Amino acid sequence: MAGTNRSKEFQGQGPVIILVRPQLGMNIGMCARAMLNCGLVEMRLVAPRDPWPNEDAFSASSGAVEVLDKARLFSNLEEALADLHFVYATTARDRHMTKPIFIPEAAMNEAKGRLQQGKKVGVMFGPERSGLENDDLSLANALINIPLNPAFSSLNLAQAVLLVGYEWFKGQDDTPASRLEMGDGRPASREEVLNFYAHLERELDACGFLRLADKRPGMVRNIRNIFNRAELTEQEVRTLHGIITELVTKRKRDLGPAKNSL
Amino acid sequence: MAGTNRSKEFQGQGPVIILVRPQLGMNIGMCARAMLNCGLVEMRLVAPRDPWPNEDAFSASSGAVEVLDKARLFSNLEEALADLHFVYATTARDRHMTKPIFIPEAAMNEAKGRLQQGKKVGVMFGPERSGLENDDLSLANALINIPLNPAFSSLNLAQAVLLVGYEWFKGQDDTPASRLEMGDGRPASREEVLNFYAHLERELDACGFLRLADKRPGMVRNIRNIFNRAELTEQEVRTLHGIITELVTKRKRDLGPAKNSL
Repeated sequence: MAGTNRSKEFQGQGPVIILVRPQLGMNIGMCARAMLNCGLVEMRLVAPRDPWPNEDAFSASSGAVEVLDKARLFSNLEEALADLHFVYATTARDRHMTKPIFIPEAAMNEAKGRLQQGKKVGVMFGPERSGLENDDLSLANALINIPLNPAFSSLNLAQAVLLVGYEWFKGQDDTPASRLEMGDGRPASREEVLNFYAHLERELDACGFLRLADKRPGMVRNIRNIFNRAELTEQEVRTLHGIITELVTKRKRDLGPAKNSL
Repeated sequence: MAGTNRSKEFQGQGPVIILVRPQLGMNIGMCARAMLNCGLVEMRLVAPRDPWPNEDAFSASSGAVEVLDKARLFSNLEEALADLHFVYATTARDRHMTKPIFIPEAAMNEAKGRLQQGKKVGVMFGPERSGLENDDLSLANALINIPLNPAFSSLNLAQAVLLVGYEWFKGQDDTPASRLEMGDGRPASREEVLNFYAHLERELDACGFLRLADKRPGMVRNIRNIFNRAELTEQEVRTLHGIITELVTKRKRDLGPAKNSL
């Protein structure tokens, strides 16, 4: 679904994802998939409830096995964070702590700066049901809170990882925000488009559509705007020329040979 | 996991989500959950493979039943789109079509403008395995492509809905990108902080830590910077005063009564 097929290989080394006391192997696998979707490859597991390695994780990862194969297992959070320089903790609730708190986009933009300085950055996610404990949060430098519909804000673990990971990926990605996908065609030059307008307007004059002289300038502008908005390709301009020619020929045929000179 | 607990109710009326020939009821339910997370409530189903209503959808929705209860069922895509004014189609592959193509963020920003004009906007998602057909795409005004790791870009349906929906939600949401969460405290004024610096530096002078006159100004600046970066609360300033006082008292006790006047 809805990925990209650009061929350039993803390069950036991103934050470490730390799953703290995850409960279900399946969720670990789905997190690995979400991570790899976003170019994140370094997973750490702190005291997972189910034994590790875990078959459910591999089968739920949809092939993101490189993340699971390299995942490191820790028995406590302090060890899992030991070599990191800056750690974010994701949390859903207000914890009455004095800590910087970021939306994922701002956190991942900030993380990019730290990573470019050679620092190792991590993002912690808590257990499925309960989230991170206050003692876990006391090991973090900053919090990430994902703004969501306040009436229905419960995300599953892999979705939280995906939203944070996607903001990381976007910060690395150079896909233009919008573009006109050209298929196999090339864009029409303005000259080609204006030639089409001339053809169309000549035939509209000939058939009488533009016969009201005081309305003609406005009508011409409006018709041109339809095609200006379409940002035509050279092939589409040729198709439109063909449509006009054929419609006119049909009209001339219908009118019969006697009126062919009209 | 990682939602927000702001109490204001989400207001904006967002785009319609159209699932075209979805295969699994479970995925429909997970899409409903992702939609409601992002404040989207209008789902349309076009020719789902499994019968509708579907038990799996309800059980996978984690309580997003209001979306499923109101979901409208259509037998063909043309009918499902009939009352809409602008339709985006999500697609993973290059389709060799001449169409505007957006990343989700740009599409949802653009959609916001249309919705504010009173237009109805929809976003189509294709079946889990194959995505939308070219004939489906010919009914859309524009494409959405989600930039992801090109080496591993396969998203499940609900994740694609979540990423598009989240970009919609972000465009409505006024959560600051970053802030210092204050817990129950209030920020310390500069005066309170400077009083603490004076206390600390007085004691550091007294104990001899700042005895090197040529180093003193730089050391003082460096120490102040530690606490400046922390953006202290008034309670934290009081705690720090207490720490200094207690450390000094301990030192004086250790030195014994004869040296109390130091």
